[in-house]
Amino acid sequence: MNQPPLILVTNDDGINAKGLENLVSVARRFGDVVAISSMEPMSGMSHAITIKVPLRAKLVSEEPGFRSYLTNGTPVDGVKLVFNSLTDRKPDLLVSGINHGSNSSSSVLYSGTMAAAMEGAVNHIPSIGFSLLDFDPDADFTASGRVAGEVISMVLENGLPDGVCLNVNIPSIPPEEIRGIRMCSQANGYWKEEFEKRTDPNGREYYWLTGFFHNREPDNGGEGTDEWALKNRYVSIVPIHTDLTAYGVLKEMLSWSFSKAYNHE
Amino acid sequence: MNQPPLILVTNDDGINAKGLENLVSVARRFGDVVAISSMEPMSGMSHAITIKVPLRAKLVSEEPGFRSYLTNGTPVDGVKLVFNSLTDRKPDLLVSGINHGSNSSSSVLYSGTMAAAMEGAVNHIPSIGFSLLDFDPDADFTASGRVAGEVISMVLENGLPDGVCLNVNIPSIPPEEIRGIRMCSQANGYWKEEFEKRTDPNGREYYWLTGFFHNREPDNGGEGTDEWALKNRYVSIVPIHTDLTAYGVLKEMLSWSFSKAYNHE
Repeated sequence: MNQPPLILVTNDDGINAKGLENLVSVARRFGDVVAISSMEPMSGMSHAITIKVPLRAKLVSEEPGFRSYLTNGTPVDGVKLVFNSLTDRKPDLLVSGINHGSNSSSSVLYSGTMAAAMEGAVNHIPSIGFSLLDFDPDADFTASGRVAGEVISMVLENGLPDGVCLNVNIPSIPPEEIRGIRMCSQANGYWKEEFEKRTDPNGREYYWLTGFFHNREPDNGGEGTDEWALKNRYVSIVPIHTDLTAYGVLKEMLSWSFSKAYNHE
Repeated sequence: MNQPPLILVTNDDGINAKGLENLVSVARRFGDVVAISSMEPMSGMSHAITIKVPLRAKLVSEEPGFRSYLTNGTPVDGVKLVFNSLTDRKPDLLVSGINHGSNSSSSVLYSGTMAAAMEGAVNHIPSIGFSLLDFDPDADFTASGRVAGEVISMVLENGLPDGVCLNVNIPSIPPEEIRGIRMCSQANGYWKEEFEKRTDPNGREYYWLTGFFHNREPDNGGEGTDEWALKNRYVSIVPIHTDLTAYGVLKEMLSWSFSKAYNHE
Protein backbone atom coordinates (compact mmCIF):
# COMPACT_ATOMS: atom_id res chain seq x y z
CA MET A 1 0.00 0.00 0.00
CA ASN A 2 3.01 2.30 0.03
CA GLN A 3 2.15 3.74 -3.34
CA PRO A 4 3.86 7.05 -4.12
CA PRO A 5 1.45 10.00 -4.32
CA LEU A 6 -0.13 10.56 -7.72
CA ILE A 7 0.41 14.14 -8.87
CA LEU A 8 -1.52 15.75 -11.71
CA VAL A 9 0.46 18.48 -13.47
CA THR A 10 -1.14 20.90 -15.90
CA ASN A 11 -0.77 24.47 -17.16
CA ASP A 12 -2.27 26.98 -19.57
CA ASP A 13 0.81 27.85 -21.61
CA GLY A 14 0.78 24.69 -23.72
CA ILE A 15 2.66 21.41 -23.59
CA ASN A 16 5.96 22.86 -24.79
CA ALA A 17 6.18 25.59 -22.15
CA LYS A 18 9.37 25.71 -20.12
CA GLY A 19 7.33 26.33 -16.96
CA LEU A 20 5.47 23.03 -17.39
CA GLU A 21 8.68 21.11 -17.97
CA ASN A 22 10.08 22.66 -14.81
CA LEU A 23 7.03 21.82 -12.70
CA VAL A 24 6.94 18.23 -13.99
CA SER A 25 10.55 17.71 -12.97
CA VAL A 26 9.86 19.14 -9.50
CA ALA A 27 6.68 17.05 -9.08
CA ARG A 28 8.46 13.84 -10.09
CA ARG A 29 10.65 14.16 -7.01
CA PHE A 30 7.49 13.69 -4.90
CA GLY A 31 5.57 10.94 -6.69
CA ASP A 32 4.09 9.53 -9.89
CA VAL A 33 3.12 12.20 -12.36
CA VAL A 34 0.35 12.46 -14.94
CA ALA A 35 0.70 15.62 -17.03
CA ILE A 36 -1.88 17.05 -19.42
CA SER A 37 -1.71 20.15 -21.54
CA SER A 38 -2.76 21.61 -24.86
CA MET A 39 -0.75 22.22 -28.02
CA GLU A 40 -1.68 25.90 -28.10
CA PRO A 41 -1.38 28.25 -25.13
CA MET A 42 -4.70 28.73 -23.28
CA SER A 43 -3.86 31.87 -21.31
CA GLY A 44 -6.93 33.87 -20.38
CA MET A 45 -9.19 30.84 -20.74
CA SER A 46 -10.22 31.04 -17.10
CA HIS A 47 -12.64 28.29 -16.09
CA ALA A 48 -13.88 27.73 -19.64
CA ILE A 49 -15.09 24.24 -20.51
CA THR A 50 -15.61 22.73 -23.94
CA ILE A 51 -19.16 21.79 -24.79
CA LYS A 52 -19.44 22.24 -28.52
CA VAL A 53 -16.60 20.09 -29.83
CA PRO A 54 -15.46 16.63 -28.77
CA LEU A 55 -12.42 16.39 -26.54
CA ARG A 56 -9.36 14.36 -27.35
CA ALA A 57 -6.46 13.22 -25.21
CA LYS A 58 -3.38 11.67 -26.75
CA LEU A 59 -0.70 9.89 -24.74
CA VAL A 60 2.51 11.54 -25.92
CA SER A 61 5.05 10.27 -23.41
CA GLU A 62 5.23 7.32 -21.03
CA GLU A 63 7.91 5.98 -18.76
CA PRO A 64 7.90 4.47 -15.25
CA GLY A 65 6.18 6.95 -12.91
CA PHE A 66 5.30 9.38 -15.68
CA ARG A 67 2.67 9.81 -18.36
CA SER A 68 1.97 12.92 -20.42
CA TYR A 69 -1.16 13.70 -22.45
CA LEU A 70 -1.88 16.26 -25.12
CA THR A 71 -5.47 17.55 -25.28
CA ASN A 72 -7.45 19.92 -27.48
CA GLY A 73 -9.36 21.07 -24.40
CA THR A 74 -8.95 23.96 -21.99
CA PRO A 75 -7.00 23.58 -18.72
CA VAL A 76 -10.22 22.75 -16.86
CA ASP A 77 -11.22 20.19 -19.53
CA GLY A 78 -7.80 18.57 -19.12
CA VAL A 79 -8.19 18.30 -15.36
CA LYS A 80 -11.66 16.77 -15.75
CA LEU A 81 -10.37 14.29 -18.34
CA VAL A 82 -7.62 13.08 -16.01
CA PHE A 83 -9.98 12.79 -13.01
CA ASN A 84 -12.60 10.92 -14.92
CA SER A 85 -11.03 8.97 -17.72
CA LEU A 86 -7.25 8.84 -17.75
CA THR A 87 -6.25 7.55 -14.31
CA ASP A 88 -7.50 4.66 -12.24
CA ARG A 89 -6.87 6.40 -8.92
CA LYS A 90 -7.71 9.89 -7.67
CA PRO A 91 -4.69 12.22 -7.75
CA ASP A 92 -3.33 13.13 -4.31
CA LEU A 93 -2.23 16.54 -5.51
CA LEU A 94 -2.77 18.85 -8.45
CA VAL A 95 -0.18 21.42 -9.45
CA SER A 96 -0.68 23.91 -12.25
CA GLY A 97 1.92 26.04 -13.98
CA ILE A 98 4.53 27.24 -13.62
CA ASN A 99 2.72 30.04 -15.43
CA HIS A 100 4.69 32.45 -17.56
CA GLY A 101 3.37 35.68 -16.03
CA SER A 102 1.68 36.85 -12.84
CA ASN A 103 -1.68 35.63 -11.57
CA SER A 104 -1.80 37.87 -8.52
CA SER A 105 -4.71 40.08 -7.45
CA SER A 106 -7.76 39.95 -9.73
CA SER A 107 -5.76 38.27 -12.51
CA VAL A 108 -6.76 35.08 -10.72
CA LEU A 109 -10.22 35.48 -12.31
CA TYR A 110 -8.94 35.25 -15.89
CA SER A 111 -6.26 32.66 -15.35
CA GLY A 112 -6.42 29.20 -16.88
CA THR A 113 -3.63 28.14 -14.52
CA MET A 114 -5.66 29.04 -11.45
CA ALA A 115 -8.92 27.72 -12.91
CA ALA A 116 -7.26 24.30 -13.19
CA ALA A 117 -6.27 24.55 -9.51
CA MET A 118 -9.81 25.62 -8.55
CA GLU A 119 -11.21 22.67 -10.49
CA GLY A 120 -9.00 20.43 -8.38
CA ALA A 121 -10.29 22.10 -5.21
CA VAL A 122 -13.94 21.64 -6.29
CA ASN A 123 -13.09 17.95 -6.60
CA HIS A 124 -11.51 17.88 -3.12
CA ILE A 125 -7.97 17.41 -4.34
CA PRO A 126 -5.28 19.58 -2.73
CA SER A 127 -4.33 21.96 -5.54
CA ILE A 128 -1.73 24.64 -6.13
CA GLY A 129 -1.22 27.09 -8.97
CA PHE A 130 2.28 28.51 -9.51
CA SER A 131 3.11 31.62 -11.52
CA LEU A 132 6.39 33.37 -12.22
CA LEU A 133 6.29 37.11 -12.84
CA ASP A 134 8.00 36.77 -16.19
CA PHE A 135 6.27 36.39 -19.57
CA ASP A 136 9.47 35.37 -21.36
CA PRO A 137 9.07 31.89 -22.92
CA ASP A 138 12.71 31.32 -21.94
CA ALA A 139 12.37 32.70 -18.38
CA ASP A 140 14.66 31.40 -15.62
CA PHE A 141 12.65 28.97 -13.45
CA THR A 142 15.43 28.23 -10.94
CA ALA A 143 13.87 30.18 -8.07
CA SER A 144 10.30 29.20 -8.87
CA GLY A 145 11.20 25.51 -9.13
CA ARG A 146 12.76 25.69 -5.68
CA VAL A 147 9.68 27.46 -4.29
CA ALA A 148 7.38 24.90 -5.92
CA GLY A 149 9.29 22.12 -4.19
CA GLU A 150 8.89 23.84 -0.80
CA VAL A 151 5.17 24.43 -1.22
CA ILE A 152 4.43 20.96 -2.62
CA SER A 153 6.26 19.41 0.31
CA MET A 154 4.25 21.52 2.76
CA VAL A 155 0.89 20.68 1.15
CA LEU A 156 1.62 16.95 0.92
CA GLU A 157 2.40 17.06 4.64
CA ASN A 158 -0.45 19.30 5.87
CA GLY A 159 -3.13 18.93 3.22
CA LEU A 160 -5.51 21.76 2.39
CA PRO A 161 -9.06 22.43 3.58
CA ASP A 162 -11.79 21.21 1.22
CA GLY A 163 -12.61 23.68 -1.50
CA VAL A 164 -9.47 25.76 -0.98
CA CYS A 165 -6.45 25.92 -3.27
CA LEU A 166 -3.30 28.02 -3.27
CA ASN A 167 -2.36 30.84 -5.64
CA VAL A 168 1.44 31.06 -5.50
CA ASN A 169 3.21 33.91 -7.29
CA ILE A 170 6.97 34.17 -7.52
CA PRO A 171 8.93 37.36 -8.22
CA SER A 172 11.25 37.18 -11.19
CA ILE A 173 14.54 37.68 -9.33
CA PRO A 174 17.50 35.42 -8.54
CA PRO A 175 16.76 32.79 -5.86
CA GLU A 176 19.11 34.38 -3.34
CA GLU A 177 17.26 37.69 -3.53
CA ILE A 178 13.89 36.20 -2.54
CA ARG A 179 13.22 37.34 1.02
CA GLY A 180 10.80 34.59 2.00
CA ILE A 181 7.35 33.14 1.43
CA ARG A 182 4.34 35.11 2.67
CA MET A 183 0.71 34.09 3.21
CA CYS A 184 -1.32 36.94 1.71
CA SER A 185 -4.75 38.18 0.79
CA GLN A 186 -5.71 39.00 -2.80
CA ALA A 187 -4.92 42.65 -3.52
CA ASN A 188 -7.84 44.82 -4.57
CA GLY A 189 -7.00 45.74 -8.14
CA TYR A 190 -8.21 45.45 -11.68
CA TRP A 191 -7.07 45.58 -15.26
CA LYS A 192 -7.64 48.97 -16.72
CA GLU A 193 -8.26 47.99 -20.26
CA GLU A 194 -7.22 50.18 -23.06
CA PHE A 195 -8.34 48.67 -26.29
CA GLU A 196 -6.22 49.59 -29.23
CA LYS A 197 -8.59 50.47 -32.05
CA ARG A 198 -7.43 49.75 -35.61
CA THR A 199 -8.99 49.61 -39.05
CA ASP A 200 -8.62 46.56 -41.28
CA PRO A 201 -7.88 46.68 -45.05
CA ASN A 202 -11.65 46.57 -45.67
CA GLY A 203 -12.22 49.68 -43.60
CA ARG A 204 -13.77 47.83 -40.66
CA GLU A 205 -12.75 48.67 -37.11
CA TYR A 206 -11.31 46.09 -34.73
CA TYR A 207 -9.77 46.10 -31.26
CA TRP A 208 -6.79 44.49 -29.58
CA LEU A 209 -7.05 43.91 -25.86
CA THR A 210 -4.16 45.60 -24.08
CA GLY A 211 -4.29 47.32 -20.68
CA PHE A 212 -2.41 47.67 -17.43
CA PHE A 213 -2.98 46.57 -13.86
CA HIS A 214 -4.32 49.15 -11.46
CA ASN A 215 -3.87 48.54 -7.73
CA ARG A 216 -6.67 49.98 -5.59
CA GLU A 217 -4.92 49.29 -2.28
CA PRO A 218 -4.17 52.28 -0.02
CA ASP A 219 -0.96 54.29 -0.12
CA ASN A 220 0.99 51.94 2.15
CA GLY A 221 0.77 49.57 -0.80
CA GLY A 222 -1.64 47.19 0.93
CA GLU A 223 0.71 45.37 3.29
CA GLY A 224 -0.43 41.78 3.61
CA THR A 225 -1.66 41.58 0.02
CA ASP A 226 -0.02 39.56 -2.73
CA GLU A 227 0.88 42.65 -4.73
CA TRP A 228 2.66 44.12 -1.72
CA ALA A 229 4.57 40.91 -1.06
CA LEU A 230 5.72 40.57 -4.67
CA LYS A 231 6.86 44.19 -4.84
CA ASN A 232 8.85 43.56 -1.68
CA ARG A 233 10.60 40.49 -3.12
CA TYR A 234 8.52 37.88 -1.30
CA VAL A 235 6.77 34.87 -2.78
CA SER A 236 3.02 35.37 -2.22
CA ILE A 237 0.62 32.56 -1.34
CA VAL A 238 -3.10 33.37 -1.34
CA PRO A 239 -5.47 30.62 -0.19
CA ILE A 240 -8.49 30.95 -2.48
CA HIS A 241 -11.81 29.21 -2.18
CA THR A 242 -14.37 27.98 -4.65
CA ASP A 243 -17.30 29.07 -2.46
CA LEU A 244 -17.70 32.62 -3.79
CA THR A 245 -20.40 33.61 -1.26
CA ALA A 246 -19.72 37.02 0.28
CA TYR A 247 -20.89 35.96 3.73
CA GLY A 248 -20.51 39.38 5.34
CA VAL A 249 -22.66 40.95 2.67
CA LEU A 250 -25.16 38.08 2.85
CA LYS A 251 -25.91 38.95 6.48
CA GLU A 252 -26.57 42.60 5.61
CA MET A 253 -28.74 41.71 2.64
CA LEU A 254 -31.07 39.52 4.66
CA SER A 255 -32.84 42.77 5.53
CA TRP A 256 -33.68 43.54 1.89
CA SER A 257 -37.42 43.27 1.57
CA PHE A 258 -38.82 42.54 -1.80
CA SER A 259 -42.32 43.41 -2.90
CA LYS A 260 -45.19 41.44 -1.42
CA ALA A 261 -45.50 39.46 -4.64
CA TYR A 262 -42.23 37.67 -3.90
CA ASN A 263 -42.10 37.84 -0.16
CA HIS A 264 -45.36 36.36 1.03
CA GLU A 265 -43.94 34.02 3.63
CA MET B 1 -28.45 66.24 -14.70
CA ASN B 2 -31.47 63.96 -14.42
CA GLN B 3 -30.07 61.48 -16.89
CA PRO B 4 -31.72 58.05 -16.73
CA PRO B 5 -29.42 55.30 -15.47
CA LEU B 6 -27.28 53.61 -18.12
CA ILE B 7 -27.74 49.84 -17.99
CA LEU B 8 -25.39 47.39 -19.70
CA VAL B 9 -27.13 44.14 -20.68
CA THR B 10 -25.22 41.07 -21.79
CA ASN B 11 -25.49 37.27 -21.73
CA ASP B 12 -23.68 34.11 -22.81
CA ASP B 13 -26.39 32.49 -24.91
CA GLY B 14 -25.92 34.70 -27.96
CA ILE B 15 -27.67 37.76 -29.32
CA ASN B 16 -30.76 35.87 -30.47
CA ALA B 17 -31.50 34.24 -27.11
CA LYS B 18 -35.00 34.76 -25.74
CA GLY B 19 -33.54 35.36 -22.27
CA LEU B 20 -31.54 38.36 -23.53
CA GLU B 21 -34.54 39.83 -25.28
CA ASN B 22 -36.50 39.47 -22.07
CA LEU B 23 -33.84 41.10 -19.91
CA VAL B 24 -33.41 43.99 -22.36
CA SER B 25 -37.12 44.72 -22.22
CA VAL B 26 -37.09 44.66 -18.41
CA ALA B 27 -33.97 46.85 -18.23
CA ARG B 28 -35.44 49.45 -20.60
CA ARG B 29 -38.13 50.18 -18.02
CA PHE B 30 -35.36 51.46 -15.72
CA GLY B 31 -33.08 53.45 -18.01
CA ASP B 32 -31.05 53.68 -21.19
CA VAL B 33 -29.74 50.33 -22.34
CA VAL B 34 -26.58 49.27 -24.16
CA ALA B 35 -26.67 45.56 -25.02
CA ILE B 36 -23.78 43.45 -26.27
CA SER B 37 -23.67 39.78 -27.14
CA SER B 38 -22.12 37.28 -29.50
CA MET B 39 -23.58 35.52 -32.53
CA GLU B 40 -22.78 32.09 -31.13
CA PRO B 41 -23.64 30.93 -27.61
CA MET B 42 -20.71 31.26 -25.17
CA SER B 43 -21.97 29.00 -22.39
CA GLY B 44 -19.18 27.56 -20.30
CA MET B 45 -16.79 30.33 -21.33
CA SER B 46 -16.40 31.46 -17.72
CA HIS B 47 -14.10 34.47 -17.36
CA ALA B 48 -12.25 33.77 -20.62
CA ILE B 49 -10.80 36.77 -22.45
CA THR B 50 -9.65 36.97 -26.04
CA ILE B 51 -5.99 37.69 -26.55
CA LYS B 52 -5.08 35.93 -29.77
CA VAL B 53 -7.60 37.38 -32.21
CA PRO B 54 -8.77 40.96 -32.66
CA LEU B 55 -12.16 41.87 -31.23
CA ARG B 56 -14.95 43.37 -33.22
CA ALA B 57 -18.14 45.11 -32.15
CA LYS B 58 -20.87 45.93 -34.65
CA LEU B 59 -23.79 48.23 -33.89
CA VAL B 60 -26.80 46.16 -34.95
CA SER B 61 -29.69 48.15 -33.51
CA GLU B 62 -30.16 51.75 -32.42
CA GLU B 63 -33.16 53.72 -31.25
CA PRO B 64 -33.69 56.39 -28.56
CA GLY B 65 -32.49 54.96 -25.22
CA PHE B 66 -31.24 51.71 -26.75
CA ARG B 67 -28.20 50.45 -28.62
CA SER B 68 -27.26 46.83 -29.31
CA TYR B 69 -23.85 45.47 -30.35
CA LEU B 70 -22.77 42.16 -31.78
CA THR B 71 -19.24 41.01 -30.86
CA ASN B 72 -16.99 38.07 -31.70
CA GLY B 73 -15.69 38.14 -28.12
CA THR B 74 -16.59 36.29 -24.94
CA PRO B 75 -19.06 37.74 -22.42
CA VAL B 76 -16.17 39.29 -20.45
CA ASP B 77 -14.66 40.75 -23.64
CA GLY B 78 -18.04 42.31 -24.42
CA VAL B 79 -18.29 43.90 -21.00
CA LYS B 80 -14.76 45.29 -21.30
CA LEU B 81 -15.50 46.66 -24.78
CA VAL B 82 -18.57 48.53 -23.54
CA PHE B 83 -16.77 49.93 -20.49
CA ASN B 84 -13.79 51.08 -22.45
CA SER B 85 -14.79 51.86 -25.98
CA LEU B 86 -18.51 51.86 -26.70
CA THR B 87 -20.04 54.27 -24.18
CA ASP B 88 -19.07 57.75 -23.10
CA ARG B 89 -20.30 57.28 -19.54
CA LYS B 90 -19.82 54.50 -17.01
CA PRO B 91 -22.84 52.19 -16.77
CA ASP B 92 -24.81 52.52 -13.52
CA LEU B 93 -25.80 48.88 -13.60
CA LEU B 94 -24.82 45.69 -15.39
CA VAL B 95 -27.29 42.85 -15.85
CA SER B 96 -26.39 39.55 -17.45
CA GLY B 97 -28.74 36.86 -18.72
CA ILE B 98 -31.40 35.78 -18.41
CA ASN B 99 -29.41 32.59 -18.77
CA HIS B 100 -31.05 29.50 -20.21
CA GLY B 101 -30.11 27.06 -17.43
CA SER B 102 -29.03 27.17 -13.79
CA ASN B 103 -25.89 28.86 -12.48
CA SER B 104 -26.37 27.84 -8.86
CA SER B 105 -23.75 26.25 -6.60
CA SER B 106 -20.36 25.66 -8.21
CA SER B 107 -21.81 26.19 -11.71
CA VAL B 108 -21.02 29.84 -11.02
CA LEU B 109 -17.37 29.00 -11.74
CA TYR B 110 -18.00 27.90 -15.34
CA SER B 111 -20.66 30.43 -16.21
CA GLY B 112 -20.12 33.12 -18.83
CA THR B 113 -23.25 34.87 -17.51
CA MET B 114 -21.80 35.18 -14.02
CA ALA B 115 -18.30 36.01 -15.27
CA ALA B 116 -19.78 39.05 -17.04
CA ALA B 117 -21.38 40.09 -13.73
CA MET B 118 -18.10 39.54 -11.87
CA GLU B 119 -16.28 41.64 -14.46
CA GLY B 120 -18.76 44.43 -13.69
CA ALA B 121 -18.08 44.02 -9.95
CA VAL B 122 -14.30 44.18 -10.50
CA ASN B 123 -14.95 47.49 -12.23
CA HIS B 124 -17.10 48.75 -9.33
CA ILE B 125 -20.37 48.66 -11.23
CA PRO B 126 -23.38 47.12 -9.45
CA SER B 127 -23.89 43.87 -11.35
CA ILE B 128 -26.44 41.07 -11.39
CA GLY B 129 -26.54 37.76 -13.22
CA PHE B 130 -29.93 36.13 -13.81
CA SER B 131 -30.50 32.48 -14.68
CA LEU B 132 -33.67 30.50 -15.27
CA LEU B 133 -33.58 26.78 -14.50
CA ASP B 134 -34.68 25.85 -17.99
CA PHE B 135 -32.40 25.06 -20.94
CA ASP B 136 -35.22 25.29 -23.49
CA PRO B 137 -34.44 28.01 -26.09
CA ASP B 138 -38.17 28.78 -26.01
CA ALA B 139 -38.50 28.76 -22.20
CA ASP B 140 -41.16 30.88 -20.51
CA PHE B 141 -39.47 33.97 -19.03
CA THR B 142 -42.61 35.47 -17.46
CA ALA B 143 -41.63 34.72 -13.86
CA SER B 144 -37.96 35.46 -14.33
CA GLY B 145 -38.68 38.78 -16.03
CA ARG B 146 -40.80 39.80 -13.07
CA VAL B 147 -38.07 38.73 -10.64
CA ALA B 148 -35.45 40.60 -12.65
CA GLY B 149 -37.53 43.77 -12.37
CA GLU B 150 -37.78 43.37 -8.58
CA VAL B 151 -34.05 42.79 -8.12
CA ILE B 152 -32.98 45.56 -10.52
CA SER B 153 -35.23 47.99 -8.69
CA MET B 154 -33.75 46.96 -5.33
CA VAL B 155 -30.14 47.27 -6.55
CA LEU B 156 -30.70 50.66 -8.22
CA GLU B 157 -32.12 51.85 -4.89
CA ASN B 158 -29.59 50.27 -2.48
CA GLY B 159 -26.48 49.76 -4.59
CA LEU B 160 -24.09 46.90 -3.92
CA PRO B 161 -20.82 46.80 -1.98
CA ASP B 162 -17.68 47.19 -4.10
CA GLY B 163 -16.48 43.94 -5.60
CA VAL B 164 -19.74 42.08 -4.92
CA CYS B 165 -22.33 41.02 -7.50
CA LEU B 166 -25.50 38.97 -7.29
CA ASN B 167 -26.10 35.46 -8.62
CA VAL B 168 -29.87 35.20 -9.07
CA ASN B 169 -31.40 31.84 -10.00
CA ILE B 170 -35.07 31.40 -10.76
CA PRO B 171 -36.98 28.11 -10.62
CA SER B 172 -38.76 27.15 -13.81
CA ILE B 173 -42.33 27.25 -12.48
CA PRO B 174 -45.32 29.55 -13.06
CA PRO B 175 -44.95 32.97 -11.39
CA GLU B 176 -47.74 32.33 -8.90
CA GLU B 177 -46.00 29.21 -7.60
CA ILE B 178 -42.81 31.06 -6.63
CA ARG B 179 -42.80 31.28 -2.83
CA GLY B 180 -40.50 34.27 -2.50
CA ILE B 181 -36.94 35.53 -2.96
CA ARG B 182 -34.26 34.21 -0.60
CA MET B 183 -30.75 35.46 0.15
CA CYS B 184 -28.58 32.33 0.12
CA SER B 185 -25.07 30.95 0.31
CA GLN B 186 -23.54 28.94 -2.53
CA ALA B 187 -24.32 25.25 -2.03
CA ASN B 188 -21.34 22.93 -1.73
CA GLY B 189 -21.57 20.79 -4.82
CA TYR B 190 -19.75 19.83 -7.98
CA TRP B 191 -20.26 18.38 -11.41
CA LYS B 192 -19.57 14.71 -11.46
CA GLU B 193 -18.32 14.41 -14.97
CA GLU B 194 -18.94 11.32 -16.94
CA PHE B 195 -17.24 11.63 -20.23
CA GLU B 196 -18.84 9.69 -23.01
CA LYS B 197 -16.06 7.96 -24.87
CA ARG B 198 -16.54 7.33 -28.59
CA THR B 199 -14.41 6.30 -31.55
CA ASP B 200 -14.28 8.36 -34.74
CA PRO B 201 -14.34 6.90 -38.30
CA ASN B 202 -10.53 6.90 -38.24
CA GLY B 203 -10.43 4.73 -35.13
CA ARG B 204 -9.36 7.54 -32.82
CA GLU B 205 -11.02 8.00 -29.44
CA TYR B 206 -12.76 11.19 -28.41
CA TYR B 207 -14.88 12.34 -25.49
CA TRP B 208 -18.05 14.36 -25.01
CA LEU B 209 -18.42 16.23 -21.75
CA THR B 210 -21.63 15.17 -20.01
CA GLY B 211 -22.15 14.76 -16.27
CA PHE B 212 -24.57 15.54 -13.47
CA PHE B 213 -24.59 17.85 -10.50
CA HIS B 214 -23.76 16.33 -7.14
CA ASN B 215 -24.82 18.23 -4.00
CA ARG B 216 -22.48 17.73 -1.02
CA GLU B 217 -24.76 19.49 1.47
CA PRO B 218 -25.97 17.46 4.45
CA ASP B 219 -29.19 15.46 4.53
CA ASN B 220 -31.44 18.38 5.48
CA GLY B 221 -30.64 19.59 1.96
CA GLY B 222 -28.45 22.47 3.08
CA GLU B 223 -31.12 24.96 4.22
CA GLY B 224 -29.92 28.45 3.43
CA THR B 225 -28.10 27.41 0.27
CA ASP B 226 -29.17 28.27 -3.25
CA GLU B 227 -29.82 24.63 -4.14
CA TRP B 228 -32.14 24.28 -1.15
CA ALA B 229 -34.03 27.46 -2.02
CA LEU B 230 -34.53 26.46 -5.66
CA LYS B 231 -35.74 22.99 -4.74
CA ASN B 232 -38.24 24.63 -2.39
CA ARG B 233 -39.58 26.93 -5.11
CA TYR B 234 -37.78 30.09 -3.99
CA VAL B 235 -35.72 32.43 -6.12
CA SER B 236 -32.13 32.27 -4.78
CA ILE B 237 -29.83 35.30 -4.57
CA VAL B 238 -26.19 34.65 -3.64
CA PRO B 239 -23.96 37.70 -3.17
CA ILE B 240 -20.61 36.67 -4.63
CA HIS B 241 -17.33 38.49 -4.40
CA THR B 242 -14.35 38.86 -6.66
CA ASP B 243 -11.87 38.71 -3.78
CA LEU B 244 -11.35 34.93 -3.66
CA THR B 245 -9.17 35.01 -0.51
CA ALA B 246 -10.20 32.33 2.00
CA TYR B 247 -9.62 34.61 5.01
CA GLY B 248 -10.39 31.96 7.63
CA VAL B 249 -7.85 29.61 6.09
CA LEU B 250 -5.34 32.43 5.68
CA LYS B 251 -5.25 32.94 9.45
CA GLU B 252 -4.56 29.24 10.07
CA MET B 253 -1.89 29.09 7.40
CA LEU B 254 0.12 31.93 8.87
CA SER B 255 1.63 29.25 11.12
CA TRP B 256 3.06 27.29 8.18
CA SER B 257 6.81 27.55 8.43
CA PHE B 258 8.78 27.09 5.29
CA SER B 259 12.39 26.01 5.20
CA LYS B 260 15.02 28.46 6.33
CA ALA B 261 15.94 29.19 2.73
CA TYR B 262 12.64 30.97 2.21
CA ASN B 263 11.88 32.13 5.69
CA HIS B 264 14.94 34.01 6.81
CA GLU B 265 13.23 37.10 8.12
